[in-house]
Amino acid sequence: MGMSRREFSKLGAMGLAARMLPQAGVPAPGGGRKVGYCVIGLGTIADHFMRGVLASENSKITGLVSGHRDKAERIAEQYGVPKSSIYNYENMDRFSENTAIDAVYVALPNSMHAEYTIRSAAAGKHVLCEKPMCTTVSEGEAMIAACRKTRVQLMIAYRLHYEPLHLKAVKLIKDGALGEVGTINGAFGFIAKKGEWRLNKTLAGGGSLYDVGIYVLNASRYLTGEEPVGFTAETSTMDKDGRFDSVEENVSWTTRFPSGAVATGSCTYGTQMPGYFKVFATKGWISMEPAFNYDGMRLRARYSSGVAGTPDIEIDESNPEKDPAQFTRETSYFSDCIRRDQKPRSSGEEGLRDIRYIRQIYDSA
Amino acid sequence: MGMSRREFSKLGAMGLAARMLPQAGVPAPGGGRKVGYCVIGLGTIADHFMRGVLASENSKITGLVSGHRDKAERIAEQYGVPKSSIYNYENMDRFSENTAIDAVYVALPNSMHAEYTIRSAAAGKHVLCEKPMCTTVSEGEAMIAACRKTRVQLMIAYRLHYEPLHLKAVKLIKDGALGEVGTINGAFGFIAKKGEWRLNKTLAGGGSLYDVGIYVLNASRYLTGEEPVGFTAETSTMDKDGRFDSVEENVSWTTRFPSGAVATGSCTYGTQMPGYFKVFATKGWISMEPAFNYDGMRLRARYSSGVAGTPDIEIDESNPEKDPAQFTRETSYFSDCIRRDQKPRSSGEEGLRDIRYIRQIYDSA
Repeated sequence: MGMSRREFSKLGAMGLAARMLPQAGVPAPGGGRKVGYCVIGLGTIADHFMRGVLASENSKITGLVSGHRDKAERIAEQYGVPKSSIYNYENMDRFSENTAIDAVYVALPNSMHAEYTIRSAAAGKHVLCEKPMCTTVSEGEAMIAACRKTRVQLMIAYRLHYEPLHLKAVKLIKDGALGEVGTINGAFGFIAKKGEWRLNKTLAGGGSLYDVGIYVLNASRYLTGEEPVGFTAETSTMDKDGRFDSVEENVSWTTRFPSGAVATGSCTYGTQMPGYFKVFATKGWISMEPAFNYDGMRLRARYSSGVAGTPDIEIDESNPEKDPAQFTRETSYFSDCIRRDQKPRSSGEEGLRDIRYIRQIYDSA
Repeated sequence: MGMSRREFSKLGAMGLAARMLPQAGVPAPGGGRKVGYCVIGLGTIADHFMRGVLASENSKITGLVSGHRDKAERIAEQYGVPKSSIYNYENMDRFSENTAIDAVYVALPNSMHAEYTIRSAAAGKHVLCEKPMCTTVSEGEAMIAACRKTRVQLMIAYRLHYEPLHLKAVKLIKDGALGEVGTINGAFGFIAKKGEWRLNKTLAGGGSLYDVGIYVLNASRYLTGEEPVGFTAETSTMDKDGRFDSVEENVSWTTRFPSGAVATGSCTYGTQMPGYFKVFATKGWISMEPAFNYDGMRLRARYSSGVAGTPDIEIDESNPEKDPAQFTRETSYFSDCIRRDQKPRSSGEEGLRDIRYIRQIYDSA
């Protein structure tokens, strides 16, 4: 697709663009040009993302949206973003005219994901949106519809879908090395501090389940390759200092998959809960711990070799890549999807499934 | 209590025994004599038990009950048990006359625990009964009543209540080193083979929850020091070879404790599921893996030192004792309880609680 935006616009005027790029109405940058991202929201995770993009061969930062002009100018200088490509939340929509911006990275509090995804799609920009995709099912449906309407790609930033050890675990299971999966356990959480947006239900949509429990839930789905049928759950709030006046502190759930595999998950904002998962199967087990951090993943497994009289196969493997490697991987992948006009694996539909399940877990508790 | 059985009987006849030994109607062996155990059921776990008793300073094997005379005679010779102290299931009650037998160890399939505990109590023998205590709440109540009636001690063989690393984990939590416990995860299971009594509901009372899930459930109780309030659960049977025609294959549950702590548990007879538990708390975490085997326990923990500016405290400790050390410990403890006329920590009431919870988990699934 070695075509400039201007050439594409001409084709569009001639009614040819749609036929050439049947799924994406917005052209991918042509030739060797990197996909340009505008970062919406300049918090902690945006910093990981931008550092990750620096190491990407096909992506770069070309715009910023922030309520803090000073901060944005400082970051713009760091990443070589012209001042003219700094926006605030009011005038952001003008970036539709900015041809250096091909896509956005939505790094705002959960409750704002829908609005800014929809506005970005309306401006003709591809959208990489942080997880959780949104806070309600109807928001997610509106996001998918908006991206479909202007034919931009929508990817939810499930960084672990692109992490080598997670992919290895999925492949081992899919290839049958472990036999049949019977049970999966997992957990992830941390102590959220007073005043953080995560503890504000209006901004976060809910508690730790949206923010960290989603990793455990999502892992149980990609590890089984199945969609859950029904949840049971317990939530609790122990709260000693009034932090938990709007979202719950602890959530634990069980779920069942069509194959009969069952899973438990736990998450929290109240205790120290290093992320892990364990998969128990007929021929052996596989575990990851740490499992959901920005780096340091360690995969362990032990399973039958399948050959009588030979010892079990044992795996103990760590991913030596350091943060922000996961962000580099996910962004490079999305930029490649944009260039190839290909729907990302962690699509809007994928993100919306987790939102439906999160709502089911809350309903069940 | 340096008193022979004969002396005690005389006192009993004089109406004094009850006053001297207000809780136990049956005398402990006097002086240095070891507490004599009759083993009821000569399966795998009885073998562990008998080897454990060999290493005990205060216990010995003095009787056997089995349906297989040949096997019993072989074992009797090994442990120095006279042939006259070998019984079968029909004539077992005659051991009431056998003064070398102070106590029994009930190592039968779950559904037979109640009958043989009650018959042993009626014969005036103290009872060490394998877990699960029984299969129904009413059985458990009858067992406790029977032991109370003849004033014999009843202990459920929760060997991990006497294992040093489990006790260390409990103490760390109880002393507040970890802060407040928010979440506990645990699992335990293995692949049961076709034809085993465990897969027969009539003999086992249920599936893996009675046999191995009980370890996970019980651990969540001794780690929190609390009693659960309510369960939710999922069960499933994937069964590829007809093994699971009477009991379920997989069980996972969530529960909540009065403090607000929540726990998940998983168990199975269908996959390889090495036992573990993880405790997540406000000041850190503690884990055990392996957690429920006969040996090889490994405790790990990381928690705040409580002193600002100093590093976290880290524990990584294994119990070097080999099987049957756990059986030695639990038997020595029970023999000591018998001698001291003291109710064991893992009493009938304690065992019955787990049965009530197991029934609640099944009801909820």
